[in-house]
Amino acid sequence: MTQSIGGLLDGITQYDGLRQRRAVAKAITLLESTRPDHRVQADALLTTLLPHTGKSFRLGISGVPGVGKSTFIEALGLYLIGQGHRVAVLAVDPSSSVSGGSILGDKTRMEMLSVHEKAYIRPSPSSGTLGGVAEKTREAMLVCEAAGYDVVIVETVGVGQSETAVANMTDMFVLMQLPNAGDDLQAIKKGVMELADLVVINKVDIDPDAATRARAQITSSLRLLGLHGNPEHMHHDAAIWHPQVIQLSALHAQGVDSFWSKVLEFKALQTRNGKFDVRRQKQALAWMWERIDAGLKQAFAQHPAVKELLPKLTQEVLEGRLAASTAARNMLAAQENQT
Amino acid sequence: MTQSIGGLLDGITQYDGLRQRRAVAKAITLLESTRPDHRVQADALLTTLLPHTGKSFRLGISGVPGVGKSTFIEALGLYLIGQGHRVAVLAVDPSSSVSGGSILGDKTRMEMLSVHEKAYIRPSPSSGTLGGVAEKTREAMLVCEAAGYDVVIVETVGVGQSETAVANMTDMFVLMQLPNAGDDLQAIKKGVMELADLVVINKVDIDPDAATRARAQITSSLRLLGLHGNPEHMHHDAAIWHPQVIQLSALHAQGVDSFWSKVLEFKALQTRNGKFDVRRQKQALAWMWERIDAGLKQAFAQHPAVKELLPKLTQEVLEGRLAASTAARNMLAAQENQT
Repeated sequence: MTQSIGGLLDGITQYDGLRQRRAVAKAITLLESTRPDHRVQADALLTTLLPHTGKSFRLGISGVPGVGKSTFIEALGLYLIGQGHRVAVLAVDPSSSVSGGSILGDKTRMEMLSVHEKAYIRPSPSSGTLGGVAEKTREAMLVCEAAGYDVVIVETVGVGQSETAVANMTDMFVLMQLPNAGDDLQAIKKGVMELADLVVINKVDIDPDAATRARAQITSSLRLLGLHGNPEHMHHDAAIWHPQVIQLSALHAQGVDSFWSKVLEFKALQTRNGKFDVRRQKQALAWMWERIDAGLKQAFAQHPAVKELLPKLTQEVLEGRLAASTAARNMLAAQENQT
Repeated sequence: MTQSIGGLLDGITQYDGLRQRRAVAKAITLLESTRPDHRVQADALLTTLLPHTGKSFRLGISGVPGVGKSTFIEALGLYLIGQGHRVAVLAVDPSSSVSGGSILGDKTRMEMLSVHEKAYIRPSPSSGTLGGVAEKTREAMLVCEAAGYDVVIVETVGVGQSETAVANMTDMFVLMQLPNAGDDLQAIKKGVMELADLVVINKVDIDPDAATRARAQITSSLRLLGLHGNPEHMHHDAAIWHPQVIQLSALHAQGVDSFWSKVLEFKALQTRNGKFDVRRQKQALAWMWERIDAGLKQAFAQHPAVKELLPKLTQEVLEGRLAASTAARNMLAAQENQT
């Protein structure tokens, strides 16, 4: 990095247009770097950026491949720009490190939005674990907020635990569904339905009857989850907000305005009840502990004494010669004694 | 502990009857102790016991309160003793530390089994976290195996993540359900249905029609989960074993024999395919890593540098003056530098 932290901060917060987008991109690249000296710079940058962050609405959007996320985000983004907003689109896709590049946030899939001067689109970071990918996206979100993007959309594909990660970094979590019966069972089983503040049935134009049936089914499932669900998993207060199901056609940009009305309704309710700030504070603390856990595990795995013991003790556990808990205690003691 | 490890080992593996039961109880009490010197003795005992363990069939049984677990386990236990088995009943109930004593494994609820000389019943350890409770139960299971109990039943109530803990320490996981429609949705949502190798609908005598409907519904849910479920969560190979749903009446001891036939069928299949050993090895490794994680978190929380920084940095994160990831990195660095 040839640019100073101060220069980057100025570029992010003061310029407009192309120079600002370059500064934003540069800052996010710095945050994504794994070089220790970059990490020190990145932490310094984050701390200076922080007073300028937090003022956007953070919207999570999830759905299985083919549900039409990119089409919807393109339509929504253009609608929001028309309303005077600036829109950033980020992505969490842990599989991108395998495929060698993220299909999410792919600019070619959001043709008009990606070239719009009021929009900034960044594909998923492609490094390592879900926790690592989510951390980079959270930090990128802060950069976008400091640059004045007042709606930050974080999208994720419906695989693994990425939906939980996105729900844990956004003010509202939207689940997109296809108008197919049985799709909701999948979402319930995976615990994603429970995370949803709003469910959107897309492609309603293809089969309006199926969409109506799906809507009824999902509404009934959401009611059951509201009655019996684990309040720890829900990000809204079930007594105040009952997640709704709306239908739209992203391809024909139909229903985008009523979608946004629902978002504003939810936001106003959360703000009025103090839930908006509480959710963000909970998320920040959970994020801190998630990173602590990841750091502890990494330090453990890299410790010389552990590296030496692990293969041997693992073998003994597998052969039933050592209790798993004893093996764990032995390695923890070795790590502690040899630092 | 006045008794030596060698004495305890002899008592567990060589005596029969009351003296053995006393040695088993003493050993489990030693394993449950939190005193560091007891822990050292407990690890020594575990290691000497290990060659005598592993030969039981480990059966997990879960279900919400009121489903009739105790009645079923009493009927099953007496049936198994009639077949020449010796039966140990353990429990995982993390809530018992709150209520001051476990209702699970309560001997008064299994009147005949609890006084039978071929049975050993132990309530849930009542200390701390689910991870801690589960660890004690795993270790108690090893003691029971060394004492020659060849069927170990681990029961849990349908709250929180205790079902996952029990599924992760048993050879077969059975979910008990009431003959109510909609109960299965709860189990699906909580991810418990996915863990089940067998589903038992109890109290079929009360409303046979409802039980038949529930059975059809659960069978269909299990099929969908088998098609779409996460193989990581399932403990059986969906291509080989398709979880079945059976009905019984524990109160009238009806269906216990066909239940046990299903268990033996599953066990034979798992053994034939090599899945039995694979499952145990996976469980042992997962257990080891779970205990490592818990140990790392505990050491972190007790570190003087962390104790000093944590309140301050937490406050800064909550007030938005410090990024959560930066706070995490600062505390990790402080822990590392001051050891």
